[in-house]
Amino acid sequence: MRATIMYGPGDVRVEHVPDSTIIEPTDALVVVTHAAICGSDLWPYRGYGQFRPAGNRMGHEFIGIVEAVGSEVRTLKRGDFVAAPFAVSDGTCPFCQEGLHTSCVQGKFWDNIDLEGGQAEAVRVPLADGTLYRLPVRPDTALLPSLLTLTDVMATGHHAAVTARVGPGKIAAVVGDGAVGLCGVIAARRLGAEQVILMGRQPKRLELGKAFGATDIVTERGEEAIEKVRQLTGGYGAHAVLECVGDELAMQTAVNIARPGGAIGRVGVPHYAGIPPLFPTFFKNLTISGGPAPSRAYFDVLIPDVLEGRIEPGRVFDFVGGIESVPEGYRAMDERRAIKAMIEF
Amino acid sequence: MRATIMYGPGDVRVEHVPDSTIIEPTDALVVVTHAAICGSDLWPYRGYGQFRPAGNRMGHEFIGIVEAVGSEVRTLKRGDFVAAPFAVSDGTCPFCQEGLHTSCVQGKFWDNIDLEGGQAEAVRVPLADGTLYRLPVRPDTALLPSLLTLTDVMATGHHAAVTARVGPGKIAAVVGDGAVGLCGVIAARRLGAEQVILMGRQPKRLELGKAFGATDIVTERGEEAIEKVRQLTGGYGAHAVLECVGDELAMQTAVNIARPGGAIGRVGVPHYAGIPPLFPTFFKNLTISGGPAPSRAYFDVLIPDVLEGRIEPGRVFDFVGGIESVPEGYRAMDERRAIKAMIEF
Repeated sequence: MRATIMYGPGDVRVEHVPDSTIIEPTDALVVVTHAAICGSDLWPYRGYGQFRPAGNRMGHEFIGIVEAVGSEVRTLKRGDFVAAPFAVSDGTCPFCQEGLHTSCVQGKFWDNIDLEGGQAEAVRVPLADGTLYRLPVRPDTALLPSLLTLTDVMATGHHAAVTARVGPGKIAAVVGDGAVGLCGVIAARRLGAEQVILMGRQPKRLELGKAFGATDIVTERGEEAIEKVRQLTGGYGAHAVLECVGDELAMQTAVNIARPGGAIGRVGVPHYAGIPPLFPTFFKNLTISGGPAPSRAYFDVLIPDVLEGRIEPGRVFDFVGGIESVPEGYRAMDERRAIKAMIEF
Repeated sequence: MRATIMYGPGDVRVEHVPDSTIIEPTDALVVVTHAAICGSDLWPYRGYGQFRPAGNRMGHEFIGIVEAVGSEVRTLKRGDFVAAPFAVSDGTCPFCQEGLHTSCVQGKFWDNIDLEGGQAEAVRVPLADGTLYRLPVRPDTALLPSLLTLTDVMATGHHAAVTARVGPGKIAAVVGDGAVGLCGVIAARRLGAEQVILMGRQPKRLELGKAFGATDIVTERGEEAIEKVRQLTGGYGAHAVLECVGDELAMQTAVNIARPGGAIGRVGVPHYAGIPPLFPTFFKNLTISGGPAPSRAYFDVLIPDVLEGRIEPGRVFDFVGGIESVPEGYRAMDERRAIKAMIEF
């Protein structure tokens, strides 16, 4: 079978690897039908952070068909159409029970040297009962791109909105016009925000953001952006700020555009050392929240809106190709030619 | 009249100053009956942070009787018994309406060179209608110490508990056994916490914490303290952490003893640069909240429990003296001989 392997910054390849098989009795073997490339896949591709061991399998957003299950798997069977959230979880620990599957006591993130990756023809999925979500549709549905986003990017945008405490009548600001930010716009509107300010610089993305419900666009950066948001919010700032970039400037912008008493939901894989100074976070009584989204818990929340067409997060995919085009998908996203790439098998 | 003036680190004096008078039509003149010394008064006393101008009036926790009101004051009259929260607020701006009086658009903190201080025989109180809370008791009530705590320390403990999201059945941990931490214990129990872990080292304070409802005491510091809290919480940490110290070690302890998905409420006047690293704040999905407590909003919430004797935060006062003993009150608190000092006039 073929799988995607990261060898080093800028060096991602699709190669033949031994076929995936069941190892543990709680495993399922999934034949992938659709996978995505994540913004966070670009971090090692760009050489940011500590590089993971060369030879790491890539991909943590995928959908597919169960080919086989281990002897202890109870809720899944061969032929089930399933989605895999970006973290493995047992479904039974206290954190899974609370809906925080990304803190599962047995949990792991994909793209870990111990696990396989989803940008591959097949994947061994550990803790299959807890991890996989059975999709209530046929594999040929036109809704597939949107369903695929529930494995990570749409769940992550939703988590940003939830942790930023978006609610009816609130003013939300979304820092970043990448795929997560765009899904954050969908999520903020879905949760009732009256005004959604999208901050970014890429015309094509901003257009999609407007289609998703952004009411205002801010293309400025730094101090000018902060001033612009103040103007758009009666001088006070946004109640809810969705931090969807993950660098220090974005976080500084977030704390400065938040209204006193407001909240910031930060998601993705932030790459800064700490949360910025007490001024203004403390003295404005800001709440800073967020983290890795519990996608597994959000399927039940979000899937009805996808199935009934009320939200269309799949529109973030503007690059579609077969497995051989994975390296080109990385390049297109890295060069910002594509918002997000979907791989069809 | 006599007032308390800070001249420099370690140099606080009670001196004769010109009598306070009404200046603005929205002012009230309050003759102070009881004032307190705050843990935050010790910051300039100890020379921490940027020193405020020599000659600054001190005191932001006081109760007294209205002596006179300006021509535009509508809700107060001479003879009213009132409490002053630690921040001035107009009561009408959007933030006051939302209950976040410490972000009032016209607001100011006491101990500001523009304002007088409460460790004095009388105080000019700006924006009196919005700022002062009329107490529904006679000035000779035995409940006075507890009512005095509502101006700051008990409100601050409550704010820590609210922003740390304490609720029924939750495990709360209180970092710090000072007066704020002790009030945090009261607040956590009052909001329904099942287990309240108090972290501190002063036997007398810890005893009072137990009397206030702490179920567990942790006297260790740093890594050992973190390990102890883990043992006390089934290995996972506390749902709600009340950070009532304000230095970097305390904040690091707080983020390490918080359970994944938990919240930290930080209060007082923290003296560290930023919130510590992404590990573990981000990856544990911690919520970090808190700030200056809106004491003005919390009077209505807390006063019934004080009046009916369900909470007794006034027990934190273990030093009581007249105005001449203010400098000794500072010394006693600085040397940790006293938890908190009350001044009677």
